[in-house]
Amino acid sequence: MSDDKAAKGKAMINRLFGAKPEDLPFPPRFRDHTVEHLFGDVWQGEALALEERSLVTCAVLTALAREPEQRVHFTGAKNLGIPREKLEEMITHVAHYAGWPVAVGALRSLEEVWPADG
Amino acid sequence: MSDDKAAKGKAMINRLFGAKPEDLPFPPRFRDHTVEHLFGDVWQGEALALEERSLVTCAVLTALAREPEQRVHFTGAKNLGIPREKLEEMITHVAHYAGWPVAVGALRSLEEVWPADG
Amino acid sequence: MSDDKAAKGKAMINRLFGAKPEDLPFPPRFRDHTVEHLFGDVWQGEALALEERSLVTCAVLTALAREPEQRVHFTGAKNLGIPREKLEEMITHVAHYAGWPVAVGALRSLEEVWPADG
Amino acid sequence: MSDDKAAKGKAMINRLFGAKPEDLPFPPRFRDHTVEHLFGDVWQGEALALEERSLVTCAVLTALAREPEQRVHFTGAKNLGIPREKLEEMITHVAHYAGWPVAVGALRSLEEVWPADG
Amino acid sequence: MSDDKAAKGKAMINRLFGAKPEDLPFPPRFRDHTVEHLFGDVWQGEALALEERSLVTCAVLTALAREPEQRVHFTGAKNLGIPREKLEEMITHVAHYAGWPVAVGALRSLEEVWPADG
Amino acid sequence: MSDDKAAKGKAMINRLFGAKPEDLPFPPRFRDHTVEHLFGDVWQGEALALEERSLVTCAVLTALAREPEQRVHFTGAKNLGIPREKLEEMITHVAHYAGWPVAVGALRSLEEVWPADG
Repeated sequence: MSDDKAAKGKAMINRLFGAKPEDLPFPPRFRDHTVEHLFGDVWQGEALALEERSLVTCAVLTALAREPEQRVHFTGAKNLGIPREKLEEMITHVAHYAGWPVAVGALRSLEEVWPADG
Repeated sequence: MSDDKAAKGKAMINRLFGAKPEDLPFPPRFRDHTVEHLFGDVWQGEALALEERSLVTCAVLTALAREPEQRVHFTGAKNLGIPREKLEEMITHVAHYAGWPVAVGALRSLEEVWPADG
Repeated sequence: MSDDKAAKGKAMINRLFGAKPEDLPFPPRFRDHTVEHLFGDVWQGEALALEERSLVTCAVLTALAREPEQRVHFTGAKNLGIPREKLEEMITHVAHYAGWPVAVGALRSLEEVWPADG
Repeated sequence: MSDDKAAKGKAMINRLFGAKPEDLPFPPRFRDHTVEHLFGDVWQGEALALEERSLVTCAVLTALAREPEQRVHFTGAKNLGIPREKLEEMITHVAHYAGWPVAVGALRSLEEVWPADG
Repeated sequence: MSDDKAAKGKAMINRLFGAKPEDLPFPPRFRDHTVEHLFGDVWQGEALALEERSLVTCAVLTALAREPEQRVHFTGAKNLGIPREKLEEMITHVAHYAGWPVAVGALRSLEEVWPADG
Repeated sequence: MSDDKAAKGKAMINRLFGAKPEDLPFPPRFRDHTVEHLFGDVWQGEALALEERSLVTCAVLTALAREPEQRVHFTGAKNLGIPREKLEEMITHVAHYAGWPVAVGALRSLEEVWPADG
């Protein structure tokens, strides 16, 4: 069963980021939690469509000003086919619920991994 | 033009919450910002579907532990027809990006305004 | 010297809140830090006028959503003669730097300790 | 294996809080994550002694101002035999790394579940 | 009217930062919100003097650890003639309400845009 | 007495970080608070063992995503003889109370000042 979660988690990480679990520079226990529990179980829940889950993740990372993780998940959103305009609008919206500075930071992250003219 | 934003904002507040701008216990300038700018302009943007915007708002309020506003926007999500299961799954997801305690608090807020058996 | 800080701190607490150090329900070491260091030293600095320091404190407590402490320091601001309109405007401003929900919460705190019609 | 985690999680929840998993008012998926993953796996790690893990949890909940969860984990710390003076000193310390207001709030939580004269 | 807000916003951005709206690397809708609503309306409120508003902004950015925006608004404060000592004292004060680390970060930001010996 | 605190604070800063107060790039008043009050008084409290206090500090800095200060205090923990595995486990734990992104950031900080293979 845990093997099943590991396989699902590995597939999800590959689909979202084009990466492999062994690319994650984490200690073994935290890597297992990330692959098996986070991507192999939490991200598999069906009550949210995958695009919704990605959008929710991007919004939370914007609100909390987690810029390095924004770069990871904005890329994931791009890989899922979410339009850049949707992320821009989400950031504009979150500005009003978490403050202008987090929006400015998220726009900077977005520009780094997905330039407006790119 | 500002009149137009006021009318749109008033309609949005009514649609989401069944409330009127004059119900908001805010000083006049902040009430105008809320009706005309926030609901009359920001919430009108078309790059996010209204259900997506509501879901994003609920996720951000969960991540930031804003419990009184969770009660307002979880009710708004219900009024838009978003299933309770989707909010539960969003909260479960956000637990992993903002910590278990904010999820526990959001489940409490959800139960208050939209009981599981209600 | 520490006695001097204790006396200054005691006087500041009385001036701001009409309270005495022994009203603070704190363990002894933390009470000493609060009276001698925080109010007896930090709050004595002359590069900020006392009204500016109170306003800065109220703004920070608003941005961080510290509602019980907002009630304490909004009362302190009132006791220093800061107009209610200035606090309302500060809250409206902070809404844009820390998000709408913290402003809504701060307006609720303000109404509790200093009603608009009071 | 997952059954094993469930059993360990159940035992840990009982040891810390004298509670049962079915007392947690959570949707099924989040309850499983809490029992099997959080208490049945994360809390089982041996590189931190259980008292250290409890103290770390209390410190984080203090710094993040998560008051309802403080009440749960301060009780857990008491049940593990951590002295009240250690929690008071932790709170005094965290005041300096996360601000006075979170310390005042944590002292209030502590007093509710473990009165100084209790 | 919206044109009027745009003109006022443009003038405020120029006064504070010596910058033009077209220098802001924002998507059009968020740029309009920033110029017309934030600087053209919110920053125009008369219940706070402009120096007070700048000081409040700097304090909130310090408390929330928004370092890139600190660099923008510390420069704005300098351009308004606020003494460096006042910002230092504000940072020292905020250390006690939001924790030592945010103060250390704000001092670093201040040194970058306004060196002590500069 | 204040001289005594200054001496104790200086010794503590040296023990933890191998640094001297004059290395701190702080304005005089904030430097005095840091040396005399924070390290010369707060860090001297006996109800927490020094290793516990260091661990609590590292946990709080992780939860609040204060990365530059993590680098300082992870080094301090190393100098006190706390095993790297204990910090890794603390970070893994805090992931669940403050979210995955703060853990990822703290692991990055740890790797910078104390590489896994170092």
